[in-house]
Amino acid sequence: MSEKNAPFTVPGLSTEAGHQVGEVLQLRLHALNDLHLTLKHAHWNVVGPNFIGVHEMLDPQIDLVRGYADELAERMAALGVSPNGTPGDLVATRDWDDYKLGRALVSEHLKALDSVYTGLIEDHRVAMAKTRDIDPVTEDILIGQTAELEKFQWFIRAHLENNEGVLDK
Amino acid sequence: MSEKNAPFTVPGLSTEAGHQVGEVLQLRLHALNDLHLTLKHAHWNVVGPNFIGVHEMLDPQIDLVRGYADELAERMAALGVSPNGTPGDLVATRDWDDYKLGRALVSEHLKALDSVYTGLIEDHRVAMAKTRDIDPVTEDILIGQTAELEKFQWFIRAHLENNEGVLDK
Amino acid sequence: MSEKNAPFTVPGLSTEAGHQVGEVLQLRLHALNDLHLTLKHAHWNVVGPNFIGVHEMLDPQIDLVRGYADELAERMAALGVSPNGTPGDLVATRDWDDYKLGRALVSEHLKALDSVYTGLIEDHRVAMAKTRDIDPVTEDILIGQTAELEKFQWFIRAHLENNEGVLDK
Amino acid sequence: MSEKNAPFTVPGLSTEAGHQVGEVLQLRLHALNDLHLTLKHAHWNVVGPNFIGVHEMLDPQIDLVRGYADELAERMAALGVSPNGTPGDLVATRDWDDYKLGRALVSEHLKALDSVYTGLIEDHRVAMAKTRDIDPVTEDILIGQTAELEKFQWFIRAHLENNEGVLDK
Amino acid sequence: MSEKNAPFTVPGLSTEAGHQVGEVLQLRLHALNDLHLTLKHAHWNVVGPNFIGVHEMLDPQIDLVRGYADELAERMAALGVSPNGTPGDLVATRDWDDYKLGRALVSEHLKALDSVYTGLIEDHRVAMAKTRDIDPVTEDILIGQTAELEKFQWFIRAHLENNEGVLDK
Amino acid sequence: MSEKNAPFTVPGLSTEAGHQVGEVLQLRLHALNDLHLTLKHAHWNVVGPNFIGVHEMLDPQIDLVRGYADELAERMAALGVSPNGTPGDLVATRDWDDYKLGRALVSEHLKALDSVYTGLIEDHRVAMAKTRDIDPVTEDILIGQTAELEKFQWFIRAHLENNEGVLDK
Amino acid sequence: MSEKNAPFTVPGLSTEAGHQVGEVLQLRLHALNDLHLTLKHAHWNVVGPNFIGVHEMLDPQIDLVRGYADELAERMAALGVSPNGTPGDLVATRDWDDYKLGRALVSEHLKALDSVYTGLIEDHRVAMAKTRDIDPVTEDILIGQTAELEKFQWFIRAHLENNEGVLDK
Amino acid sequence: MSEKNAPFTVPGLSTEAGHQVGEVLQLRLHALNDLHLTLKHAHWNVVGPNFIGVHEMLDPQIDLVRGYADELAERMAALGVSPNGTPGDLVATRDWDDYKLGRALVSEHLKALDSVYTGLIEDHRVAMAKTRDIDPVTEDILIGQTAELEKFQWFIRAHLENNEGVLDK
Amino acid sequence: MSEKNAPFTVPGLSTEAGHQVGEVLQLRLHALNDLHLTLKHAHWNVVGPNFIGVHEMLDPQIDLVRGYADELAERMAALGVSPNGTPGDLVATRDWDDYKLGRALVSEHLKALDSVYTGLIEDHRVAMAKTRDIDPVTEDILIGQTAELEKFQWFIRAHLENNEGVLDK
Amino acid sequence: MSEKNAPFTVPGLSTEAGHQVGEVLQLRLHALNDLHLTLKHAHWNVVGPNFIGVHEMLDPQIDLVRGYADELAERMAALGVSPNGTPGDLVATRDWDDYKLGRALVSEHLKALDSVYTGLIEDHRVAMAKTRDIDPVTEDILIGQTAELEKFQWFIRAHLENNEGVLDK
Amino acid sequence: MSEKNAPFTVPGLSTEAGHQVGEVLQLRLHALNDLHLTLKHAHWNVVGPNFIGVHEMLDPQIDLVRGYADELAERMAALGVSPNGTPGDLVATRDWDDYKLGRALVSEHLKALDSVYTGLIEDHRVAMAKTRDIDPVTEDILIGQTAELEKFQWFIRAHLENNEGVLDK
Amino acid sequence: MSEKNAPFTVPGLSTEAGHQVGEVLQLRLHALNDLHLTLKHAHWNVVGPNFIGVHEMLDPQIDLVRGYADELAERMAALGVSPNGTPGDLVATRDWDDYKLGRALVSEHLKALDSVYTGLIEDHRVAMAKTRDIDPVTEDILIGQTAELEKFQWFIRAHLENNEGVLDK
Repeated sequence: MSEKNAPFTVPGLSTEAGHQVGEVLQLRLHALNDLHLTLKHAHWNVVGPNFIGVHEMLDPQIDLVRGYADELAERMAALGVSPNGTPGDLVATRDWDDYKLGRALVSEHLKALDSVYTGLIEDHRVAMAKTRDIDPVTEDILIGQTAELEKFQWFIRAHLENNEGVLDK
Repeated sequence: MSEKNAPFTVPGLSTEAGHQVGEVLQLRLHALNDLHLTLKHAHWNVVGPNFIGVHEMLDPQIDLVRGYADELAERMAALGVSPNGTPGDLVATRDWDDYKLGRALVSEHLKALDSVYTGLIEDHRVAMAKTRDIDPVTEDILIGQTAELEKFQWFIRAHLENNEGVLDK
Repeated sequence: MSEKNAPFTVPGLSTEAGHQVGEVLQLRLHALNDLHLTLKHAHWNVVGPNFIGVHEMLDPQIDLVRGYADELAERMAALGVSPNGTPGDLVATRDWDDYKLGRALVSEHLKALDSVYTGLIEDHRVAMAKTRDIDPVTEDILIGQTAELEKFQWFIRAHLENNEGVLDK
Repeated sequence: MSEKNAPFTVPGLSTEAGHQVGEVLQLRLHALNDLHLTLKHAHWNVVGPNFIGVHEMLDPQIDLVRGYADELAERMAALGVSPNGTPGDLVATRDWDDYKLGRALVSEHLKALDSVYTGLIEDHRVAMAKTRDIDPVTEDILIGQTAELEKFQWFIRAHLENNEGVLDK
Repeated sequence: MSEKNAPFTVPGLSTEAGHQVGEVLQLRLHALNDLHLTLKHAHWNVVGPNFIGVHEMLDPQIDLVRGYADELAERMAALGVSPNGTPGDLVATRDWDDYKLGRALVSEHLKALDSVYTGLIEDHRVAMAKTRDIDPVTEDILIGQTAELEKFQWFIRAHLENNEGVLDK
Repeated sequence: MSEKNAPFTVPGLSTEAGHQVGEVLQLRLHALNDLHLTLKHAHWNVVGPNFIGVHEMLDPQIDLVRGYADELAERMAALGVSPNGTPGDLVATRDWDDYKLGRALVSEHLKALDSVYTGLIEDHRVAMAKTRDIDPVTEDILIGQTAELEKFQWFIRAHLENNEGVLDK
Repeated sequence: MSEKNAPFTVPGLSTEAGHQVGEVLQLRLHALNDLHLTLKHAHWNVVGPNFIGVHEMLDPQIDLVRGYADELAERMAALGVSPNGTPGDLVATRDWDDYKLGRALVSEHLKALDSVYTGLIEDHRVAMAKTRDIDPVTEDILIGQTAELEKFQWFIRAHLENNEGVLDK
Repeated sequence: MSEKNAPFTVPGLSTEAGHQVGEVLQLRLHALNDLHLTLKHAHWNVVGPNFIGVHEMLDPQIDLVRGYADELAERMAALGVSPNGTPGDLVATRDWDDYKLGRALVSEHLKALDSVYTGLIEDHRVAMAKTRDIDPVTEDILIGQTAELEKFQWFIRAHLENNEGVLDK
Repeated sequence: MSEKNAPFTVPGLSTEAGHQVGEVLQLRLHALNDLHLTLKHAHWNVVGPNFIGVHEMLDPQIDLVRGYADELAERMAALGVSPNGTPGDLVATRDWDDYKLGRALVSEHLKALDSVYTGLIEDHRVAMAKTRDIDPVTEDILIGQTAELEKFQWFIRAHLENNEGVLDK
Repeated sequence: MSEKNAPFTVPGLSTEAGHQVGEVLQLRLHALNDLHLTLKHAHWNVVGPNFIGVHEMLDPQIDLVRGYADELAERMAALGVSPNGTPGDLVATRDWDDYKLGRALVSEHLKALDSVYTGLIEDHRVAMAKTRDIDPVTEDILIGQTAELEKFQWFIRAHLENNEGVLDK
Repeated sequence: MSEKNAPFTVPGLSTEAGHQVGEVLQLRLHALNDLHLTLKHAHWNVVGPNFIGVHEMLDPQIDLVRGYADELAERMAALGVSPNGTPGDLVATRDWDDYKLGRALVSEHLKALDSVYTGLIEDHRVAMAKTRDIDPVTEDILIGQTAELEKFQWFIRAHLENNEGVLDK
Repeated sequence: MSEKNAPFTVPGLSTEAGHQVGEVLQLRLHALNDLHLTLKHAHWNVVGPNFIGVHEMLDPQIDLVRGYADELAERMAALGVSPNGTPGDLVATRDWDDYKLGRALVSEHLKALDSVYTGLIEDHRVAMAKTRDIDPVTEDILIGQTAELEKFQWFIRAHLENNEGVLDK
């Protein structure tokens, strides 16, 4: 395989700084690719009385997440770092487990997905902090994605809340 | 009524910090709800030779402001704070007066609305400052709203300006 | 504030009759403004296993009700009566209470909204009767709105019915 | 020319009653044809500082009025009465004068059009009353048209009103 | 099978009155379901030199009639009366015969359909009269449907008319 | 009534073979007409906490099934066999019972519809087998319809499944 | 009424030349206004076995002709000549007769309309010749209209032709 | 000219088998190109009382047939066989005659086109049989095209049928 | 075959002159039919590193050219001359050769198409000159087509140019 | 910089003639680029009571003018002349002054723009005359642009006219 | 994890047969998920002079392949077999290697993708053969996917072909 | 010319601070105006084998850049600073040279444009830094523009890269 890093980066950043930002994004890219595959997997495997609402709620989010993976990968390329989007590299590199549930009731999938979102968003916020001082453009992309991911996590949680906002475990 | 605050918030923030941000947004939500009602009120009550242009100019802004209220309320919910959108709570809580004009000439309504926007935007900028260090995601939402609100205030002011940019009082 | 009533009304009605009809509509306008704010409030505060279906079911109804408020206010203006759409006037004038629920389960919100609709529709039917002999044009507008409001109330009730059509209390 | 009235009408009405309703509509058809020609004439001849707003405000109304002429003519045909839509018959039959203004300022055209609308709407309301007991279907069509025509007349008048709602003469 | 009538109806009507209106609509629902099936049957079975025009003319009317069946059935549900839309109940309950023609020339189908429309519209007008004093909302729905059904019947008849408006038998 | 079978069929088939295929489709046409009426009936009569999701899930399937009825009827016509789409013939010819449920909970309707789909799809597969060797064009149409009908049956079943895929009876 | 001619015209033409061109267009405007009224009149009054095809064929042409009237009137205004679009002026000024037919068979209307188009197009070609040397911009507008009007006249004629292209009289 | 056949074909087929299938498609491509030219020719040359219906009926079919030619040519290319789409090769290779009619009545063109479709569809069915065992993908494409071509032929025939389905010769 | 020329032409031209123009267009029609077939042929047969850009560039031009053939054929019909669009007549009448290339590199096809366009456009310009004095409407149609054809030829040439604008041979 | 003129031009013109036409267009291109920049400049700098109508009226014209610049530049390229669209060349080559106004009242900008249009259109008409005998295709493009530019100039002037058509200076 | 297989399958198949078909699809699902990830990876990593064409060519294919994965997974669910779409299972189960190239020239990626398609399509054809006798519905889905996948492989190959159709290695 | 700076700015900023930000944007506005003119110039002047891909790639970017110029100019106006968008001021004020290339190969233009983007983006990043502490709203606008400009620069560079990411000089 060729060199991952090109000898250039975006204007106004040192090549080293630009590549450092790009490398932060590689695991974010894997996380988003993993997420849209996992959401589709849940889309196919949810069952129970609330099936149709949740089955249909997932598709627009999947489209959004696919777009976010694209956005980060193209940002990496602009920064001069070759993005890796293959499933083999994803599985070899990630620091989280494969999604566990197969066919299961809506509430079980929602609880499992809530947990997936918590992990992914925490890492997005860490990446925001890492890029803030070097490259506000990349930080702003991550902020925008985080806003929408947190909104969707609220959709998930709202199914699990009671009047006091306590989540069903 | 149930507890306003749930025992969770968005990932990466402490529950306390997340709720603090959410509480900042409650008055912003009331301000935006008040604004879209007021803009509709003006839409119905403007009269005079420039009626049609200003009557029609208000509707897209009303749609925008309604969307902003929705955006802030759903951000509050994601942060674990129950948003309140009822007119009773709005009127009991706000620290500004009800809009004064009834049927009136275009220029009178535009002057009154210019003043409404100045108050609302100043408070949005204060909220931006309050959320910046705690939650850049919420700050970014407020920045995006402020940009558009300031652009529309310019639309209002441009009707009142002379060649030197001095506003008709 | 200027005179609420202009010296004209729609052709074919006496000015007095036209203004009488317009005044009937003022409280209908407040009721519709209250309704769309309340429906949005519920949209943000429903929780529980059926969250997504009811959360999404409310938005098209909100758009419809906002359009109905606009329709009545512009009818008032055509009749020569200045419509008042500010939250302060709404709260000062209405003869019903602010919506009580905050974060609550879907079924609780649906029961509360069923009650809101019953009150609003009864008053719409009284207004239909009051305008029928004076102005069939205004009556027809109220009839058309009532048809859609009753249809949406059925959507609400259908969630609460059992096989015999008995509503869950 | 062939017989104006066919030997049939809509089901549930006597042929005589159906034709009587159809004949009421003939002058309404001429009035609407006259109106859309006159509105286009004004569209081309308005001048002055508010040109563009009023020039553009007229076109959607023209489309509406053309649709209303079509609706009444096809209602006549359904009632078994041949509608006449030629300019020669219009001019020979109408009981109002040709529109007087050529190139003129916006405010002059708006005052003249306000007067045109007053005449046309008064006659529409008379036709509503004439058809009410015989054919509620035709009455309902006239009611629906009148609502929109009165709304547009308000658009015209709003340009001419002052704070008290008094129209500029 | 469960109780056809729920213990509620729309606000402002007595339960008894609301159910009475709902029951009037049941046969209207069967008539509209029968009509859209019959129109499709004709759509498939017309032949002869004018095939394509009439074949295509029927489809938009079929969509309209399907929408009208839906509108009446949901009105029944809102009134607290369970609508029955099965073909078995339709055939057992109707007081008219099954459509007689199979493959036949355009003119034969148009004559047969003209007769179908006459029966259905007469019954719609009777239902209008029955509901007028009890529930103007239901009456208004029936008026609106009748206007369009009569317009389409004119489309049918216009193929059968001569210069004098006499219909080909 | 005229001859059901024309003296022609599609090119490349003997007239006898073409008509044999067309006759297989007549009962499939009745089954699809029955299905879309029954789905609408369920659309109007479902009640209970999951009302809105299932109420809305049915409409796109109804549109699809109406299109399938049209597709088979026009295939019959192309094969030279006059299709019969009247409700009288449907009820007289079918070998299954009218749908039993009126107003009932979502889960009851879903169980009843699951059973309806099982019957209809089994018969579609028999028809596929009958047409395969004579006319692969007709077989392919039935295959395409069966794929979508089976997918929708899965939607129904997914509401009734538990983690093991066992259906609620 | 004000002066018909303004003291300006389009750049590059003498005011006199520009006004001369504008005056040529006044009768063309009347002819197009007359045409779209006449086409609608025919749209409502055609009867007979080919009703639907011809009824629907007229509407897109009516939209086109209305656009052509608008195009010429606005060209007149650009040339500094106030366009007159009122029915009174049309009838007083035209040098052709009002359309003669009421309810009549398709073929009769098509023959009458063929004759209307022949007159109008001949005059358009004369106007093309008159404007060619003075103002190629106006000529080009007339050429473009003529192309489409001649195409529609062919649609009319094609209904009346036999194999040899001889028109039915 | 270069080699018609490339040294590859689609995966899973021997190169020889793939090319054999591709060669079967060459004459089908010529037939479809001939058909869309012929349909356009008829579109321009039909005359008589039913002109507009048939003139307009042909255009969507022309678009479909052009798409089918594209589909087969690209299938040939995928199979490794260079498609030939020039008129010279078409005329030199085809085993049927050029279309005979010029300007002619609708019924004459429909009879001639019925005959064109019979020939083309018979050959499509032969090609289906030839490709079935070698390449079900190609067969499926031909089946799909045949279904639509047979449906359009029924449109043609329906103009020529009487009540018994006997075609006018 | 019937008479090619009808006894009429467009208004304002002598029948003889109109037919003369129509006959000029017959070869232009063949040229455009040949062109869209040839462009599709190239679309299927281009290969090499720039495949996708040129493959996709051709389709919008093909749609345009098909529309131009339609435009000229319908102009011929309006002029009273029956257009011939069959491939047999095209090949028998044309004075140019069939396109020579099969599968070939992008640059080879572009060079060959450049030559095709040169021939076709030269003939279009000759036709413009021939029709100018007789019928400016036809000339204007040819001018409009030539503008777009020359623009597309530039697209072709731009692939073959070097910095000096010299074309690769 | 490379040679401005390629050794080719469009078919049917001598290379010299084609280049001569292309060179005429270079200054027209600069004028249109200048115009859309100037219109945007005015769009941002208009102030006063009629702000919104004129601010919005300019945008569609800007889009049109940008398209015209593109059209002329691509025509130059087709004629074999390299178009120059850089601001440096524009300013160095033009024979008119930079637009003078900054922030100013609507009426001041409209007067200044009226003058800009007069200059640009006069030059367009000169270019029309220069290209007419050499290349009617280019002339036709200029005619089409001039028609729309003159129409927009009328929009400007209509704001400045009084009843007599006299422009406010 | 729960049972992969439910105790049901589609109507007309034995449960065992249905599950056997569903299991065949699991590896096809992994292959399609792998393919759309790999195509996106290539979309981000292609470089060189033909970048933009190939970069953009991949996106519509990615959308298609994502839809095919969805189609197969939902077919599995309908057959009663729980689909697995997680990246961990994909990588653990597949019998092919991860895509090798990172940043590389267009031609290198196209050669590598050609090889990916060959493997995937061969396996699709094997799956077609396995399902043919058991379930023609599943076979038909695979046939439809294969047709489009082979067409896209031709797009890839066309970039690599020379005049003889020999692929660049 | 009037005063460039009005006596107001956006709420929450001192007038001095607001004007300072507005003045920073003036050169950014000139840079974006220059860029869209230069991109169009390249759009017209690229030649060579990859013409069509790059020619078409530029247009969406041009639309984006035009929108960015509009966004900055309207931001200036909102800040109380009159934006200057004339070409004369642009050329007099800018600190970079006019674009040098005329007709040239794709790769030459891409190299030159890469250099243009580097300059413009470096200056955008400087402006971001200057506005950050004073006005985060303006900074956010610049961040959003920079993200898209850097993405497009990557499109340019990707054409020039080799496997190692080294750019062709």
